[in-house]
Amino acid sequence: MTDCQGDVEGASTPMELYEKLSEQGVKVRSLKSAKADKTEVDTAVQLLLKLKMDYKQMTGHDYKAGCPPSENDAAPNNGPAADVAGEDDTVDPWTVSTTNAKGVDYDKLIVRFGSSKIDQELVDRIEKVCGQKPHRFLRRGVFFSHRDMHQVLDAYEKHKSFYLYTGRGPSSEAMHVGHLIPFIFTKWLQDVFDIPLVIQLTDDEKYLWKDLTVEECHRFAIENAKDIIACGFDINKTFIFSDLDYMGSSPEFYRNVVKIQKHVTFNQVKGIFGFTDSDCIGKISFPAIQAAPSFSNSFPHVFGSRKDIQCLIPCAIDQDPYFRMTRDVAPRIGYPKPALLHSTFFPALQGAQTKMSASDANSSIFLTDTPKQIKNKINKHAFSGGKDTVEEHRKYGGNADVDVSFMYLTFFLEDDEQLEKIRQDYTSGALLTGELKKILIETLQPMIAQHQERRKQVTDDLVKQFMTPRPLNFNL
Amino acid sequence: MTDCQGDVEGASTPMELYEKLSEQGVKVRSLKSAKADKTEVDTAVQLLLKLKMDYKQMTGHDYKAGCPPSENDAAPNNGPAADVAGEDDTVDPWTVSTTNAKGVDYDKLIVRFGSSKIDQELVDRIEKVCGQKPHRFLRRGVFFSHRDMHQVLDAYEKHKSFYLYTGRGPSSEAMHVGHLIPFIFTKWLQDVFDIPLVIQLTDDEKYLWKDLTVEECHRFAIENAKDIIACGFDINKTFIFSDLDYMGSSPEFYRNVVKIQKHVTFNQVKGIFGFTDSDCIGKISFPAIQAAPSFSNSFPHVFGSRKDIQCLIPCAIDQDPYFRMTRDVAPRIGYPKPALLHSTFFPALQGAQTKMSASDANSSIFLTDTPKQIKNKINKHAFSGGKDTVEEHRKYGGNADVDVSFMYLTFFLEDDEQLEKIRQDYTSGALLTGELKKILIETLQPMIAQHQERRKQVTDDLVKQFMTPRPLNFNL
Repeated sequence: MTDCQGDVEGASTPMELYEKLSEQGVKVRSLKSAKADKTEVDTAVQLLLKLKMDYKQMTGHDYKAGCPPSENDAAPNNGPAADVAGEDDTVDPWTVSTTNAKGVDYDKLIVRFGSSKIDQELVDRIEKVCGQKPHRFLRRGVFFSHRDMHQVLDAYEKHKSFYLYTGRGPSSEAMHVGHLIPFIFTKWLQDVFDIPLVIQLTDDEKYLWKDLTVEECHRFAIENAKDIIACGFDINKTFIFSDLDYMGSSPEFYRNVVKIQKHVTFNQVKGIFGFTDSDCIGKISFPAIQAAPSFSNSFPHVFGSRKDIQCLIPCAIDQDPYFRMTRDVAPRIGYPKPALLHSTFFPALQGAQTKMSASDANSSIFLTDTPKQIKNKINKHAFSGGKDTVEEHRKYGGNADVDVSFMYLTFFLEDDEQLEKIRQDYTSGALLTGELKKILIETLQPMIAQHQERRKQVTDDLVKQFMTPRPLNFNL
Repeated sequence: MTDCQGDVEGASTPMELYEKLSEQGVKVRSLKSAKADKTEVDTAVQLLLKLKMDYKQMTGHDYKAGCPPSENDAAPNNGPAADVAGEDDTVDPWTVSTTNAKGVDYDKLIVRFGSSKIDQELVDRIEKVCGQKPHRFLRRGVFFSHRDMHQVLDAYEKHKSFYLYTGRGPSSEAMHVGHLIPFIFTKWLQDVFDIPLVIQLTDDEKYLWKDLTVEECHRFAIENAKDIIACGFDINKTFIFSDLDYMGSSPEFYRNVVKIQKHVTFNQVKGIFGFTDSDCIGKISFPAIQAAPSFSNSFPHVFGSRKDIQCLIPCAIDQDPYFRMTRDVAPRIGYPKPALLHSTFFPALQGAQTKMSASDANSSIFLTDTPKQIKNKINKHAFSGGKDTVEEHRKYGGNADVDVSFMYLTFFLEDDEQLEKIRQDYTSGALLTGELKKILIETLQPMIAQHQERRKQVTDDLVKQFMTPRPLNFNL
């Protein structure tokens, strides 16, 4: 495990350590001025010296009272997600951007975030433990990074179960195919491990961040829940909740939120999320609400009062800052740290430089698109790695690494051999851009049509059932 | 009304106005550089100039980009409660201190907080509207300051009802007589106006501020509720709630909390409450939770979806910063501003320089004290305004203004004439300190014994009834 959090007695950011040091300094001075017992003073001084050494190790500088650490002193896996000097990629919960046509450099991101790579060994191990062929997202590195997945599997092998937690911010009614990635993968995990799942719809977050009313955000949550249910989740093992509803339905959930809020300072969320003094207090305290579902006793209807059931969170890597914070707080409030599986970003039709936008209809394939819209969008907007003329393409071949149609097939075409053949043919020039696009169109059209068919079956009553706090099939 | 909030288009603190100005400056520059339509640029420039004029009027200085206003620029009723230059008194929700033996200078506080004095005219008007002799707390200036009370009475005369909201931070099991002041007065208001009352127990706040567990704070809330119920509130018109419980029982309450949290920045709570970057995000966002009960739709079981029912908050003046913030936010989220009635502080036995401490058993008379403890505490600890010897006292008289026993009688002795006679006799020297203390002892002993008797009658089941969200007697 490259995860190096929690080494310094609960202080895992330079700012936290700095604060601990300042406090300890005050303590030593007051003990001395009160002419306290010598052993007591010596113990306090020793802790002060140890903290100073830890501080130097973490930041590379000596501790200096009154000079808090700067952002560049941030520990690799706790620093602000954005603005690391010398990096072209920006990845945080609100911005994902890169100047590279192939997309974000995920290997560098693993180093920066301090997570672990999902290597072949881990993929093989998942296959062995669950007894199923690994999902294509694992085979192809769509889920590429993790925290503590080996620990989850160790426990599972000893018949210690875990639960899944994922979510979505309902910023509009419209969801696109990229939004399905975590849900498709989470459904697979639920099926192969046979475990409960909680899905958070952060309608409160969207209200805080966007120019929307509370009622609009709540309505989007319900509409999005329909698309999520259409992914095929098992109603006996899945609880979907809107924050605006669930916060007001569960004293246990609110208690965990308050516990987290007591153990995170403004300095910390400033460092992790880049909040400023002009941000509203709702934004500043929101991270605790995204953190709370990581703890099993937030769901007493499912787990009773048990707080020791490990949580596994499949999510896009941009959500990791929330869960670095969560993992930092967990041991301090007596809970296990959640484990994580991180996915890459789903590229916009226009290219892998940015994440898609739900507000730009042409930036992706939406779950409401007609077969004709799918065809037109792909033909018109999907960035091509092909050459300018058929002659050149035949002669030099296309570049699958930057071709958005090929990237989309990586996500949605199940057959590994067929995918590899497409790559080879496109690279050699045997397959033309129009032909590649046709394969993608013929893959997505039935997939979306089937999704729409399943979504139609999702009644208001079914949504209500999924969103009602109730016991799930789970053996305590 | 001296209340001058909300004049500058929703910007009522210098910091808010400063932020609006900065934004407008950016807008003007971007319009100019985009060579936008002339009318559009002119309109933007005009607004910029108007904001600059407002800024100068509010702060006394010119706006300068990059130089946010300092605390001393704060508008009279929105500045930080503490630390106003040239003042000896510190009054905020966590600290009340003064160097004056008579206690805090309340007339100066009215000017500083921008509230209005409860003058004889208002006391007479309350008597006229409710048809009852004004409570001794009104007759004697214990409740001395208000916001919008005339507006509440205007509406009441037109048969537009209102509701009461008060509360308590349950930091320990023990309550002292001083804690009863807002409840004694609120019960009187409930009786004479025949209106519903909500009582908030901020157990979440105490968890965030104190070194206590969630469970301890919740238990203190329940214990404190018993003392509150023993004050005689009408179960058909009173809802008592613990935040830890009610937040998790009412989506409507949480929605109001989030709405408030969206409309208050860290800069604002920093200015109002003195929070720093090292404070936890729970403290920073808590003010919204104390604000939310000021809006009637936070209690759908009582008021349905009506959001226009005026709230009147009787509280000690140190809680005013919360409600200045609330009144600032209210119009921006479409709710009426709550009205307020402010009380003075109840002095510690040792003198009026400080508020009492629940953690110092000798600083006040506790609701659990025996008759003997009451007698001993008053005889031993009550600060006396008398002279050193009987001879001197007979000759020069005592000082009732600084005598704590006399102050306590002001709060608890109902008979105005008797109180006035005591003052005269003490001042003339006819009444000795021991005799004055005896009158107080004989006033408090039966009062506390009766309270204890009533508290004994408060069953767990009765507490549960008071704390269950349910309809109250209220004609919508």
